[in-house]
Order: sequence, then structure tokens, then C-alpha cells
Amino acid sequence: MIDFNIIPLQEDLDEQIKNKINQKTKPLGSLGQLEKIAFQISRIQNTLTPYLNKPNIVLVGSDHNICQEGVNPNPQKITWQQMINFSKQGGGIGLFTQAYNINLTVVDAGVDYDLSAHKNIINAKIKNGSGNFMHEPAMTHEECKQAIENGARIVRDLHTKGCNIIGFGEMGIGNTSPASVLMSIYCNIPLEKCVGPGSGHNEDGVKRKLATLQKAVSNKPDLKEPFDILAHFGGLEIATIVGGMLQAAELKMIILNDGFIITSALLAAQALNPKVLEYVIYSHHSKEGGHALMMEYLNADPVLNLDLRLGEGTGAALAYPIIQGAVKMINDMTSFESAAITDTTETGTSIL
Amino acid sequence: MIDFNIIPLQEDLDEQIKNKINQKTKPLGSLGQLEKIAFQISRIQNTLTPYLNKPNIVLVGSDHNICQEGVNPNPQKITWQQMINFSKQGGGIGLFTQAYNINLTVVDAGVDYDLSAHKNIINAKIKNGSGNFMHEPAMTHEECKQAIENGARIVRDLHTKGCNIIGFGEMGIGNTSPASVLMSIYCNIPLEKCVGPGSGHNEDGVKRKLATLQKAVSNKPDLKEPFDILAHFGGLEIATIVGGMLQAAELKMIILNDGFIITSALLAAQALNPKVLEYVIYSHHSKEGGHALMMEYLNADPVLNLDLRLGEGTGAALAYPIIQGAVKMINDMTSFESAAITDTTETGTSIL
Repeated sequence: MIDFNIIPLQEDLDEQIKNKINQKTKPLGSLGQLEKIAFQISRIQNTLTPYLNKPNIVLVGSDHNICQEGVNPNPQKITWQQMINFSKQGGGIGLFTQAYNINLTVVDAGVDYDLSAHKNIINAKIKNGSGNFMHEPAMTHEECKQAIENGARIVRDLHTKGCNIIGFGEMGIGNTSPASVLMSIYCNIPLEKCVGPGSGHNEDGVKRKLATLQKAVSNKPDLKEPFDILAHFGGLEIATIVGGMLQAAELKMIILNDGFIITSALLAAQALNPKVLEYVIYSHHSKEGGHALMMEYLNADPVLNLDLRLGEGTGAALAYPIIQGAVKMINDMTSFESAAITDTTETGTSIL
Repeated sequence: MIDFNIIPLQEDLDEQIKNKINQKTKPLGSLGQLEKIAFQISRIQNTLTPYLNKPNIVLVGSDHNICQEGVNPNPQKITWQQMINFSKQGGGIGLFTQAYNINLTVVDAGVDYDLSAHKNIINAKIKNGSGNFMHEPAMTHEECKQAIENGARIVRDLHTKGCNIIGFGEMGIGNTSPASVLMSIYCNIPLEKCVGPGSGHNEDGVKRKLATLQKAVSNKPDLKEPFDILAHFGGLEIATIVGGMLQAAELKMIILNDGFIITSALLAAQALNPKVLEYVIYSHHSKEGGHALMMEYLNADPVLNLDLRLGEGTGAALAYPIIQGAVKMINDMTSFESAAITDTTETGTSIL
């Protein structure tokens, strides 16, 4: 099941939402991106009084057998070590979700290690590592569909518990490789512009990684459909996140995008159903080179630009307090009328 | 008293601070600007375990008689109306300080209205509005010294109560005019690159404002010393903030810079004592055009870029949760050792 019924945002409250923001005690447009975020969230929820409830970051991990081709300088065992660390609220994402009161859900989609003893890790494992796409598809069609369905189910469960804003994170040594290939194909951008250092390549390492991925792509069968591309060159965590994103949009949840890997999942999701994009807030510009081109392709204007390249959903977590500020603004900031301030809306220009 | 004894940051813990950040469970440098902020704050406090205590935004208001020349399209009464609004935690800054648990201190340095009935507004009024610098100095030397001392005293009081991180905000219809002139003189940048729309000029309005300010500058006496420039072309709130910044640096407090007006105060402060800059974190890029050139002049890399141009210290407030995240990172994020993760520091490059 990869069809999701995503409804375009309704426009009937647009004028009222704009008017409410423009009547706040400030020069028109002077809260910049916060006004745009408040406007978008109000449209997603089709209300003049939007709210955020039970924010959640779903971090999905998997290994990648493309690492057998030497595309990553770090040992694969870091994937499972970090998954255990995250499940105890360690690592960057464990830290920032605690700092900003965000719930963290850790999901094993394909880690090459038995994590079943760790009860805080949701078992959604399809197999031990995505296939080495130099020689075989990363996933069979069945496996990819199952991953999408797993992601969707996890998001449905969170939504049932009240969550209405969700970010995604990932852990998987080597996963900048599938992300680079997905980007190249979905955006029709040459692979050399999509490949970067990932978690720590030097310049020579990046060259070898590019050569390997170019060879893998030249081996590819004729892939026409967005789904086929995802199954062949994706990763188990990426496909799981694609399902989570599409399900979140169907449920009218706010989706917080993250860095390079998560955006590769979003590229796949929007290739399957472009309406998902209406529900997305872009949390940050990643330092990983290809991310800037992804943002350009998606016509996105991310909230933060902190030179992050850690992944794990850390950009989404760090942007969350700003999103909270935007929602608080439309709900609680004084208006010209409530504060008895002379209305100055004639001397400026609305940005909405 | 305009001499402050600001001590350069100590470097003896530098290697230990870098090492602590680099041993966190992440690729080297992958937390980008957060690593730099954590490093700077650790140096300011000369410790491996920095902390933030009683964050405060000091918002200083004043009127400006240069408005008699038509440099601002909005009525001056908005200054006092907003001051009362802020004192009740209204407006943008009242909202964001509440949202992020920051204390807000509202100070009257020269509002042309009797605010003495409002007990939440600190009375540091020098006179009712900065002088119209088309015809007279904004402040006499005595008035400017008194404003600097007032700002310093307010910061000393907050420091005594435990505050170790301070931002500054401002309210003053017309104050982009003194800020533009100060920028032009301190940075030696032509005035036409320093003048923007402020709180709501259209294109014609900006042209008139520029012509007026050019005339005022051409009238100026021979001003050699940084202090003389501040007194002649500054504003009462700007001078008060200059004193606050210099005092904060002397007391080794972290200073959060804000937008166009606050940065004009910082330009004056660094002209008086350049060591103040070592204590400054730049919170955001303002949408007001000249701010980008100010950041370039100061070699600054601000935390946020949200197209804000509201002033009031809102950029500093919105950046505060990110600063908190950086401090939490160096203190509480897991290390390779504590989390039993394979050390990968050999495969990357430190950014510190």
C-alpha cells in the first residue's frame, strides 16, 4: 500500500489568518519567516488558533551493504552502537529532544545487529542491511512496500496518541550514498553535485565514493517509476521514513524536514505524491554540499543555517523552539487593538 | 566614566575545551555553529562546564527629535505606547521572552512621555527625546556619559542578582536614523548603504530619509573621538545600551547582539573598547539592509537568519534556545567513551 490520500491545504481562512498576523503590534512583515510559518501551520490545521501537541522525532536506523564497496570511512558497527545510545537518550538527538521537550521514537528498520533486547527501540526490521546496489536492489518491491507501511503504521500510532507535529531522523553508516543517488535521479542533477564527504571523507575519499556510485548507477536496470528508484537505490530507513512522511501528510500533521538523508526521503515521497510538500517545514540548511541543491529544487527556505551535518533529526529538533515561537505569536502576541497601539499597517507591506 | 576594564578571553583551557567537544558522539565538526558557541562561552567563563543563569533582555526606549525632519512615517507616540505594552509583557519581545523563559527589563532612557506611573519601567530618563542632530547634538557630553553610566548600573544590578547572559533590545520611533549615521561613520561606509526602510518607509520615503541624513552629516562639527560621534549622532537608548554592553563585558557576561539598532550600539562600544567583541554572540541577520554590512564589518556569523526586522531584542530572544542547546551539548552530550561508541575522530577535521 503506497497510496496515501493527501488533501491540499484549504484556502478559505487565508485572508483571516493574514489579517490576524498583520494586526499584531509590529511593522507589517517584520517577523519574517515566523509569520510564514504561523501562516502555513494555520492553513495545515485550518484554524486561526493553531497548536502544537506531543512533538515527536522518529529516528529510523539501518545498515547499508553498499559499504562493502568502501563508500564510508567509518566502521558499520557505529550504526548499532549509536542506536543503543539514542534509545537511552544519548547522542546529539537524545540531547536536543530532551532540551526542547520533544519525544524521541527510535526504530530499527534494518540494522545489522540484534537490537531486540532494547525495548525502547521499535522493531521494524525488514532485513539486516539494505542490499548492495552495486550488484542487487537495496530492497525488493515487497520489502520496500513493507518498509513504507511500517513507517506509516508508526506515524499512525503517534497520531492516535495526539502528536500533530513530527520530524524524522536517521542513523546508518553509509547512508549518504543512497541519498546522493536518490537525489541525482529524482532531481535530475549530475551525481558529482550530489556526493559529499558525509560523516568524514577527505577529498580522495569523496572521489572514490563518487566513482563507486557512478559505477553503481551505470549498472542500473531501466527504472521508470519513483517507487522503483526508491526500492533499487534507497535504504531501509529511507523507505520507512517515506512511508512516515506520506502518512503524516494524510493525517494533516506538520512535518519537520531535516538534513541530507531525510530530504532524500522527502524527494522520494514527493515523487510518489507531491502534495506531501504542503505539510513540510524545512528545519535547516545542512553543511553537506548537495543539501543546498535539494533545497533549491524544492524551493525551500529553511529555518536554520548552523552548518550542521550530524543528521539524526538534530536540525528538526533545534528548529522546534522557533516553530513554537511562531505559533505562540499568532495566538498570544498583542494586537494593535488589544494593546491600544496606533495602527501602522498603512506604512508597510504584508509579506503574506 | 566611560572606561571599562575588559579582560581578553583566557586561552589556557582552549585545548581541553576543544578536546571535550571533539570527543562527543558525532563526526568532528558536525554540530557546526553550536560547537563554536559552546567554545566561546567556555572561554568567556574559563571553564569546561559553562552554564547560563538568569538570562535577561534589557530593552531601552527613547524618542528622537530628528523625527521633526520627517525621517519616519509613523507617529512618535508609538514609542510610549509600546513601552507600556512591553512593561506588561506585550509586543514581540514580551511574547518571546515569556516563551523562552528570559527575564525582560524595560528602561526609559528618553521617551517623550511621563512613564513614571509604570513601576515595571526603570526610570533612567536623561531628557524627553534625543536632540535633533540636524541642528544640535543628540546629547551633550554630560548627557551621553550619564546614559552610559545608567546602562552600566542596570547591568551591574542584574549581574549582582546572578545574570550571566544578557541581550539588549530597543524601542524608539526614528532610531534607524541615528543608527544609520553611526554605522556610516564608525564603519566608514557611505550613508546610502546604511539607510533602509526601517519600520515602514516606501522607496520614496527611504530617499527622503537619506537626503535628510546626508544634510545632517554635512552639518556636523569636526568629530574625532568615538565618544564624540556617539554623543552627536547617537540616541539616548543607544548610549545607554553602549554602557550596558561595556559593563557586561567587564563583568565577563555573555552579550547577545540583536539587529540594526543594537548593532549600531555595539559599533560604538567596540570603537570605545574593541575587547567588548570577544564577549558577543551575534543572534541574527536583520532584514534591514545595512545590517549585513555591519555583520561583515564585525566579521560576524549570526545564529539566525529569519528575515526579522522588528527590533526590541526579538532576534536575541529567538536565538536563546539555540545557545542553550550549545551549552547543553558541551555539558551533557554523550562522549565516545561514556556511550561505548567507536571513536571516529581520525576520519574528520575539527572546526575549532
